[in-house]
Amino acid sequence: MKPLPQVLAFDVFGTVVDWHTSLVREIDAMDLGVSGDEFALAWRAQYGPAMQRVMSGELGWTLLDDLHRMVLDELLVRFRIRNLNEVQKRQLNRVWHRLDPWPDSVAGLTRLKSRFTICTLSNGNIGLLTNMAKRAGLPWDCILSAEVFRAYKPDPATYLGVARVFDLEPAQVMLVAAHHEDLAGARACGLQTAYIERPLEFGALRPKDVSPRSENDWHAANILALAEQLSYQ
Amino acid sequence: MKPLPQVLAFDVFGTVVDWHTSLVREIDAMDLGVSGDEFALAWRAQYGPAMQRVMSGELGWTLLDDLHRMVLDELLVRFRIRNLNEVQKRQLNRVWHRLDPWPDSVAGLTRLKSRFTICTLSNGNIGLLTNMAKRAGLPWDCILSAEVFRAYKPDPATYLGVARVFDLEPAQVMLVAAHHEDLAGARACGLQTAYIERPLEFGALRPKDVSPRSENDWHAANILALAEQLSYQ
Repeated sequence: MKPLPQVLAFDVFGTVVDWHTSLVREIDAMDLGVSGDEFALAWRAQYGPAMQRVMSGELGWTLLDDLHRMVLDELLVRFRIRNLNEVQKRQLNRVWHRLDPWPDSVAGLTRLKSRFTICTLSNGNIGLLTNMAKRAGLPWDCILSAEVFRAYKPDPATYLGVARVFDLEPAQVMLVAAHHEDLAGARACGLQTAYIERPLEFGALRPKDVSPRSENDWHAANILALAEQLSYQ
Repeated sequence: MKPLPQVLAFDVFGTVVDWHTSLVREIDAMDLGVSGDEFALAWRAQYGPAMQRVMSGELGWTLLDDLHRMVLDELLVRFRIRNLNEVQKRQLNRVWHRLDPWPDSVAGLTRLKSRFTICTLSNGNIGLLTNMAKRAGLPWDCILSAEVFRAYKPDPATYLGVARVFDLEPAQVMLVAAHHEDLAGARACGLQTAYIERPLEFGALRPKDVSPRSENDWHAANILALAEQLSYQ
């Protein structure tokens, strides 16, 4: 058994907050004549490619808020939504600041905070993550973001950046995430890893395979269950 | 009367925490054969010149923890302290992570947090500020630092950086500080300003002139008093 880490760095979208349900609810409430479910999935699907354009150098450094807006503008054309003015588009784009936490997130983070330093390590920008935390009551000790490191996960600069910020060895930091590719990036940098099952991340119609993989140090049904597991060590 | 800001950004050393008392207590407890008061003042006095070496380009980007250590090594020679090993020097250097808040700080910040987004805007590095907040119970929504902007106050990049992070106009942000030169830097960038009296920042023997200056938007005896003033607006 490895020694416990000192810092837990959390992926946020999907791991701590339920982006799919939150987006669908807001989009459906706007009565745009489109399926909130389809629109939400399309928006999220373009997130990786948009970041890739930054990391490849095609785009200069761009905050996630601005990438979300670029994708939104494309989707409004593709879904033939023509009746939104600029204020409404800005308001819709900020739905990513208003995502609800999974039911266990606040209680789990609060419990983990009593023993560990808990921070975000998200591709979301600092303002987005701060607004989200304030609204949802997420008790972060510190908000770290791609914006601090000017690189998007899975760039090693992000994972190693957390260790450097806290003047720790990589193995003294653990990434907590619901996505194996994120955890693989962290592991390659020497961080510990904890996988969180979020089977309904993409909605109730598309359950995700959440079976354990032996390469992760921890596997938990949710954040509260992770807190429970770590408290026995 | 200007509209109230949305974000309050706080200077930390001297404004939120009492560095002088905290340093004197730890240094005196180490029994180094020097005056804790003199050593603390000398350490703090070299803070500005050390940052100046970074901002002039003489030194590359350097975190405050490392600047504190450079100054500490000089002071150990100047004060003829020869009996500290490396572990003890590292431990002493981290005294800046263990500063106690002024008696009103936690209550005042907690009250302000219910109405505003509250963040640090300090020359301290992120790890230092996070460790300090966790130990002292400072309820920041977000920790912003010279480290995020790779510039030290009073560089405009720091004040304007806060507005940019939150996608606000400078006038929608207020700097709260016990130092007029910091507030002047913020005002020059268009931020609102609040001065906090900390007459004993340099110890009981050296009371500071804390008389009001008309150029600041607000003037308060302490952070709790500022919360009280803002609640009437």
